[in-house]
Amino acid sequence: MKIKLGKDSYGKNAINLSKIVRHEDYHEFRQISVNVSLQGDFETAYTVGDNTKILPTDTQKNTVYALAKEHFVSSIEDFALYLANHFCSNNAHVSRTTIEITEHLYSRISFDGLEHPHAYAGRGNEKHVTTVVQDLNGKSVTSGIKGLLILKTTGSAFTDYIKDQYTTLKETTERILATECEALWLYDSHKPDFTKLFPQVRNTLLKAFAFHKSLSVQQTLYAMGEEVLKKNAEVKEISLVMPNKHHIPFNLQQFGIENNNEVFIATDEPFGYITGTIIREEEN
Amino acid sequence: MKIKLGKDSYGKNAINLSKIVRHEDYHEFRQISVNVSLQGDFETAYTVGDNTKILPTDTQKNTVYALAKEHFVSSIEDFALYLANHFCSNNAHVSRTTIEITEHLYSRISFDGLEHPHAYAGRGNEKHVTTVVQDLNGKSVTSGIKGLLILKTTGSAFTDYIKDQYTTLKETTERILATECEALWLYDSHKPDFTKLFPQVRNTLLKAFAFHKSLSVQQTLYAMGEEVLKKNAEVKEISLVMPNKHHIPFNLQQFGIENNNEVFIATDEPFGYITGTIIREEEN
Amino acid sequence: MKIKLGKDSYGKNAINLSKIVRHEDYHEFRQISVNVSLQGDFETAYTVGDNTKILPTDTQKNTVYALAKEHFVSSIEDFALYLANHFCSNNAHVSRTTIEITEHLYSRISFDGLEHPHAYAGRGNEKHVTTVVQDLNGKSVTSGIKGLLILKTTGSAFTDYIKDQYTTLKETTERILATECEALWLYDSHKPDFTKLFPQVRNTLLKAFAFHKSLSVQQTLYAMGEEVLKKNAEVKEISLVMPNKHHIPFNLQQFGIENNNEVFIATDEPFGYITGTIIREEEN
Amino acid sequence: MKIKLGKDSYGKNAINLSKIVRHEDYHEFRQISVNVSLQGDFETAYTVGDNTKILPTDTQKNTVYALAKEHFVSSIEDFALYLANHFCSNNAHVSRTTIEITEHLYSRISFDGLEHPHAYAGRGNEKHVTTVVQDLNGKSVTSGIKGLLILKTTGSAFTDYIKDQYTTLKETTERILATECEALWLYDSHKPDFTKLFPQVRNTLLKAFAFHKSLSVQQTLYAMGEEVLKKNAEVKEISLVMPNKHHIPFNLQQFGIENNNEVFIATDEPFGYITGTIIREEEN
Repeated sequence: MKIKLGKDSYGKNAINLSKIVRHEDYHEFRQISVNVSLQGDFETAYTVGDNTKILPTDTQKNTVYALAKEHFVSSIEDFALYLANHFCSNNAHVSRTTIEITEHLYSRISFDGLEHPHAYAGRGNEKHVTTVVQDLNGKSVTSGIKGLLILKTTGSAFTDYIKDQYTTLKETTERILATECEALWLYDSHKPDFTKLFPQVRNTLLKAFAFHKSLSVQQTLYAMGEEVLKKNAEVKEISLVMPNKHHIPFNLQQFGIENNNEVFIATDEPFGYITGTIIREEEN
Repeated sequence: MKIKLGKDSYGKNAINLSKIVRHEDYHEFRQISVNVSLQGDFETAYTVGDNTKILPTDTQKNTVYALAKEHFVSSIEDFALYLANHFCSNNAHVSRTTIEITEHLYSRISFDGLEHPHAYAGRGNEKHVTTVVQDLNGKSVTSGIKGLLILKTTGSAFTDYIKDQYTTLKETTERILATECEALWLYDSHKPDFTKLFPQVRNTLLKAFAFHKSLSVQQTLYAMGEEVLKKNAEVKEISLVMPNKHHIPFNLQQFGIENNNEVFIATDEPFGYITGTIIREEEN
Repeated sequence: MKIKLGKDSYGKNAINLSKIVRHEDYHEFRQISVNVSLQGDFETAYTVGDNTKILPTDTQKNTVYALAKEHFVSSIEDFALYLANHFCSNNAHVSRTTIEITEHLYSRISFDGLEHPHAYAGRGNEKHVTTVVQDLNGKSVTSGIKGLLILKTTGSAFTDYIKDQYTTLKETTERILATECEALWLYDSHKPDFTKLFPQVRNTLLKAFAFHKSLSVQQTLYAMGEEVLKKNAEVKEISLVMPNKHHIPFNLQQFGIENNNEVFIATDEPFGYITGTIIREEEN
Repeated sequence: MKIKLGKDSYGKNAINLSKIVRHEDYHEFRQISVNVSLQGDFETAYTVGDNTKILPTDTQKNTVYALAKEHFVSSIEDFALYLANHFCSNNAHVSRTTIEITEHLYSRISFDGLEHPHAYAGRGNEKHVTTVVQDLNGKSVTSGIKGLLILKTTGSAFTDYIKDQYTTLKETTERILATECEALWLYDSHKPDFTKLFPQVRNTLLKAFAFHKSLSVQQTLYAMGEEVLKKNAEVKEISLVMPNKHHIPFNLQQFGIENNNEVFIATDEPFGYITGTIIREEEN
């Protein structure tokens, strides 16, 4: 048996970039983190240290900053598409470029209902992300949200599950449902209006979560994804990851106090980890 | 020379607690993390392992959950005051109790301008904190904000500083001023309306930051603190920590591209670290 | 087009468990974190909230603790194999179980060359990990290391790479090569002596890294993987992730001081991200 | 009442620096993170934006790199002393300089009992730290350890504590005692042999922890500090922080399995937080 290189990739991660676009009456501020990853004809770089086909990751970084001036002007999806195409077009031995962009969200601060023209506050852990892959087969664009911390204080049950010798969990028709949701959806083309679609999908997810009568995290996850596909023709499929951030009723009974789902232990670990992809099926 | 115990304290940290208060037309959800710390007559516990005066940290934890049911009903400051008094009053050898509470902030999700009655979204890294200390001298209440990420894209200069043989920084009259502000203010009593004052102080801080013509982080920090003292008679002093989250113009010149403060490297480390306390001085 | 469930899985993550095995002359201490993930006939759980086939993640957690007493007695790989088989065998609608275990490593503390019988110190960020997958096709065992921070102060060059209009990196024949290596290798059976093989593979990786004359991270990565396959017949393939933790010579020249690769800026971001899988190829 | 500046300081944090010293038969590699903090006559900088007395934090950073070449040659304490003196001596309006250095520890990798001349592995979370303060009163040097994860599987009890209506903890004469210890000790001069003393104090701490028959974390903490003062005349006082990293016996009884302190839930939060300072007392 011979030993050889299987899959490989290399690139630059965490290219942290901010940008100001000065509009007439306000400043637009954006902050992103870009990952570039290249695949292609790099076997001899790995096997014999031949760097003649290697575009250094330092140069990849410089390229992202240089192209941001002219080409990071609207959505992160559009900038990622531009970058992916740049690396594929300008490097003969690159057969696939993957660009990941995470946007750190900011909002202009409001005073008395008016947005300040150039003062911003960060919007926290929730991130807008995109992954663009360009190769010989074309381009694909995935967009998503990470760190979306959502919860509901009622409208969530969990009953009728399997019981075995290790079961201690009690059935409940009233529990807190909390998750830090990650949603990644694939567009069916690379030319939709990303700026318009992103908040639309986000809102669909929130609404489905809020109004769903939940019998399980699994069911709520599916309902959220289904609703996104129903309401957004441009979305081909969506994957959701919904860790169950448990809020466990604290046993106050032992101190002679009643706890009607009022006081909870908020725990980080262990946590339920529920995932699912909702897709469209061609009908014959 | 004899060896002996100097200062000491012990307690329970990270008591993570959530609570639902069911109002008629909506649910109120709160999530906090509580630290309890006791000081007092514990020398023999340290020196000879005499536990007869030790209230176990596990019991401290239980106490916080048990008291939350009846007494965590409004501000974290009020709950901290209640807890501090409980531990001091019920434990003869405790001479000082320190309660720290961090509140993880949530907002009800809005759809078409209406808040959902029981669906919440987390508000990110910004935390509302309080520290209450009760001892023989009385009680003190400090409130504050941590993780307040704010920035302005103009209105910030830095010039006329010392130059020496290690200076490479260029003077600028136009730079991004960004910080993750921590503000802690001491109230002059332990009976103000905490629920009303907190957003009021927060808003004063944001406004001063946004509208200040900054000659340095130091000056902006002082201006923010000064404004809080001017506008809030109940605040005795305020301490601000304002790490300078640098956004450094990327050198596009080397590629023949002009960079008019448009494209920046967003850096985490190293970072300037500016602190200051603004106080009231008794006038004779 | 119809909407339906694609891929899905659910389970419990971060089941943090420690164990003492009391040997005659010393105590063995182990600490692990276990993830359980189940796949199978769960479609109706997602689509209509039918929980009758759902083994709650809480029960999964209880099961891991219960089985640890008798069955976590040697390698994490053996315990993962036992757990995977347990969940597949006892749950008719589970068609695939994935068990991931991370071991937090401890060593008995030595005094004057002698190991203390029951006092331990943690061994830091380096973790021993394993992933076992059991399904209808059988079982697979992957083992690995995460967080292996290694560097060499010489024996590393980077030259002869592509130059374009965005190149600013200077060629070097002498640089620091530093990485926080992640290595995951697939065994060709599920019955080797895991306890013996793990340190053997780890040592091969370290040796290859230390003695390699590096022309690039890519080449060193390949050399390390190739050596593991050469020396360990039981290893079928190995994947390496080697982020380049850059140490950049600080420009002392500007202060009239020579810097012969002595003083560096140690940076976290951005970082090169180099990956590769080294495999065996059947020869005809 | 007038509003004015109280305490203030400013400086640069997280100056991440690595260094190679090339010895005849091996390379010495060091990596540190330096914080510089200045106090002094900076009032007008805060109150009116007068920067003429401000040494920019960027220049502070440059200074640390520039001085590292000649002056970071032995212990971090000696380098911190040099830096503190540099900033105090060269800046008339600086009345106090605080230098904090954290050393990230590395060891040369050994193969067959021989240390490789230039290949290193990181030693994990445990950090060696120092804080030097220089002002008009002189210099003080504090050294310490952070992130020292230690535990013992026996020799630890906790009994005879206070019981009240919220007590649920059971007394035990056999429990795991685990902590991530932070120890900071003050030297009685600024001229001891830091390189020799650091491992000596560390070893004293480990030995006291390992061999102590613990009746409580408090008692073990005191015993460790007392031993350091007894064995090291150069140490004036020592402060220890010992969070109790709880390992809680899992209730296997409910499944008909006996758990003789064998299987534990390893928890992160909440945690006991025990602190104490052990000092020398002048005897009359």
